Formats: sequence, structure tokens, C-alpha cells
Amino acid sequence: MPPTSETLTAERILEATEEVLRRHGPAKATVVDVARALGVSHGSVYRHFRTKAALREAVTKRWLDRTSERLAGIVAAEDRDPEQRLRDWLAALFAAKRHKAGDDPELFATYTVLTDELGGVVQDHIADLTAQLTRIITAGTEAGVFRAADPTAAARAVFQATGRFHDPCYAREWTAPGVDDEFTAVVDLLVRGLRG
Amino acid sequence: MPPTSETLTAERILEATEEVLRRHGPAKATVVDVARALGVSHGSVYRHFRTKAALREAVTKRWLDRTSERLAGIVAAEDRDPEQRLRDWLAALFAAKRHKAGDDPELFATYTVLTDELGGVVQDHIADLTAQLTRIITAGTEAGVFRAADPTAAARAVFQATGRFHDPCYAREWTAPGVDDEFTAVVDLLVRGLRG
Repeated sequence: MPPTSETLTAERILEATEEVLRRHGPAKATVVDVARALGVSHGSVYRHFRTKAALREAVTKRWLDRTSERLAGIVAAEDRDPEQRLRDWLAALFAAKRHKAGDDPELFATYTVLTDELGGVVQDHIADLTAQLTRIITAGTEAGVFRAADPTAAARAVFQATGRFHDPCYAREWTAPGVDDEFTAVVDLLVRGLRG
Repeated sequence: MPPTSETLTAERILEATEEVLRRHGPAKATVVDVARALGVSHGSVYRHFRTKAALREAVTKRWLDRTSERLAGIVAAEDRDPEQRLRDWLAALFAAKRHKAGDDPELFATYTVLTDELGGVVQDHIADLTAQLTRIITAGTEAGVFRAADPTAAARAVFQATGRFHDPCYAREWTAPGVDDEFTAVVDLLVRGLRG
């Protein structure tokens, strides 16, 4: 049990919440479990997150944000070729999701349950990712590499057309033989489509 | 109860099985229920389908085949423009799945459970559909409308990239506002990609 004198931050609570979720699963994890893991009263947790629902939302957002943050660097590298950045971004998204699913299957299953319940948090995450894609496609259009009349609509189409390689409902396909070739075939087709 | 003198065909058994599945759900439906619905002994059913598993496979295959059969006409219309046939085929697949999900949600849910269990039947169905798509893309390549070095790989990529509009895991998105525009955006992008 960590010393209670250590400052209780929202981040420390979220770390402990993830650990509790990993151990107990989404159905059984309670705020009391989180408080116990931190050696504090549940009132101290409620001072940071006013309800159990708010805590679950925040921990799920943190889990999803870890992926968007990994990808932000590819979007920001504006000196690089937009087509290559698009390919790298899609590959990095697939890799991030595949790692999450493969490295810690229990936690991935837990967050899949939470994201099913928390539609709003997922919508925000998809909006974040689509905005990143829009920036890359806009850069490609400005550079004359892509021809997209509506980069936002094109970004949404690219995101949806690659769902097989990032949507949790396909997680069991991500280790199938040939899946990397399938990914490349879809991305090649979409890139050719964006070139117009 | 229908007269037992009527010839007991595999098709009549499958019709009755679907009705029993609709009424009892996939977990509870038994061969005895099917026999009772037909007014025959369960031995008579077993003469056509040697196990309960074989019966479940056959009824699921019949359900999936109904979709492939609807699409086969579009593939066969070889005098028509391949690009338009591709668009029609994808739209007809989306429409067929959306109707199945919306017109009879209980039966759709039942078959979603069955297809989750019967991976081989689903693989055959996907192979059927991909073979149909391959024929259209090959025709387009021969006509010079499409440029696909490997029409089979291109067909698989098109099928996977449109998963959002035919895979049951997205069924709840199919009535969302804007889904038809999203479908069109994805198909336009893929068609441009095939044109090369």
C-alpha cells in the first residue's frame, strides 16, 4: 500500500483504477477497491471523480488517448511526404491496437466492455483520430499528391474502410496469417483512390 | 401440424428449423422441437441431417446463401458496365444485410450467434462473395475500366474495406443518420482506387 502522504492526483487514481479493472474485471471493480489500492478513503477518490461513471469514463478516455498520442507525432511531421505519413499513420494505428489486444488480453477485453458502454467517449476518440487523418489528407491535397474534394469526408472514408485493422470487433483476426498482406492491399487501394 | 404424408424434404426441415430458431433462440432449439413442428419423429429428421450440428450448419448456410443468390444476378449481367455492376453489387449486399437486420431482428440475432459458432460456414460464404466480386473486377480489368494486377486480392480488399456495411458487428450503425453518405464515400474512394 503506497504511503497516503503522497499527493493523490487524478493520474494516480486512474493508474490504480486500471490495475483494479485488470484484476477484478469491469463488472466487479468498485470505487472502494480503487481507494483501498491507494490506501485512501473512497471520499478522497470522489473528490477527483464525482461518480463511479465519471471515473470509468476518465480511465477509458486515458486508455484511448494513449493511442491518439502515439499517432500525433506522425501528423505533426509536416516536412514528410503526406502519402508516406498516411501509410505510417494507418500502420501505427493497426500496430497500437494489435499490441493492446495481444500484450494484455484481459485488459483489452475489459476496455472493450467499457467502450461498448461508453459511446460518447468512443465517438470523441474517433473524432480525434479522424481529425488527425484529415490533417494528413489536407496536406496531401495541398501538395498535389492527393485529390480530395472534401478531406474530412475522405478521412472518414479511409478510417471506416480500414476498420478491420483497428476496430476491436476484429481483434481475433489480427493474428491470422496473411493479415499484414490484407492490410497492405487495402491501404494501397485507398491511397490509389486518394491520388484520384 | 402439417400432414405427415407430405414428403419430408431437407428444405421442409430447414424451413421448420428456422421457425423453431426464431421462436426458441439458438440456445434452446432442439431437433425434437423441429420434428414436433413437422409432425414427424426425430428419427425422420436425423435421416436427412445426421446430427444437430449438421442441421444448424445447413440452416445457417441456407440463410447466408439467400444473400449470395440475390447478388449472383448482378455478377451474371456481363453486358453491363463493370464499375456500375461493382457499385450495384456493394449496394445490394448492404441492402440485403440491412433488411435482414431490420426486418426480423430476433432471427438476425439468432443467426449472428450461429455464425459466430460456425466459422467454416462463414468462411465459405465470404469465399463465395469474394469470388463474385473477383468476377466483376476481372471483367472491369479486361474492359480497361479497372487496373488490378491481382483481381482476387483486389476483390478481398474491396470486401474487407466495406465491412462496415455488411459485417453484423456493425449492424447497429446501419440505421444511423448519414450512413448512406458514408457508404457512398467509401465506395467512391475504392472505385477510384481500382481505376488506378
